Amino acid sequence: MTKVRVYVTYKASILDPEAQAIKGATSKMGYSEIKELRMGKYFDFEVEADESTAKEKVAAIANELLANPNMETYTVEILGDN
Amino acid sequence: MTKVRVYVTYKASILDPEAQAIKGATSKMGYSEIKELRMGKYFDFEVEADESTAKEKVAAIANELLANPNMETYTVEILGDN
Repeated sequence: MTKVRVYVTYKASILDPEAQAIKGATSKMGYSEIKELRMGKYFDFEVEADESTAKEKVAAIANELLANPNMETYTVEILGDN
Repeated sequence: MTKVRVYVTYKASILDPEAQAIKGATSKMGYSEIKELRMGKYFDFEVEADESTAKEKVAAIANELLANPNMETYTVEILGDN
């Protein structure tokens, strides 16, 4: 079993109002050290395949299902075997 | 500047219907290798502080703002300095 993680986030050119709202809230709460905030979703898959097949399958799923190609980008990362 | 990432996900005891729906969709699309799927949100902060202070501040923000303590758990990870 291979663990594979997908990160989905807005493209850099897309404004993320939720991240801006959270950053504004941290500032109001007194956390002036926070200079930037980006956010996104992650998906942890357990795949019954070797690492390269698992990564390929999960990338296909990210492309076809998880990310909105108009606004979002994704990255796929192997977390390991177990 | 220290980069710190927070992962927020449902507690293991909480059913995640969105993850179940996505897992069901992968199965219908023919990806029978997918055995488990967990999902969550992540938040990447850039913090003007050293690593230990940055981690402490971000953990406080996660606790006070990002995670719903009734249903969710969070982990904080230092991504590095830059």
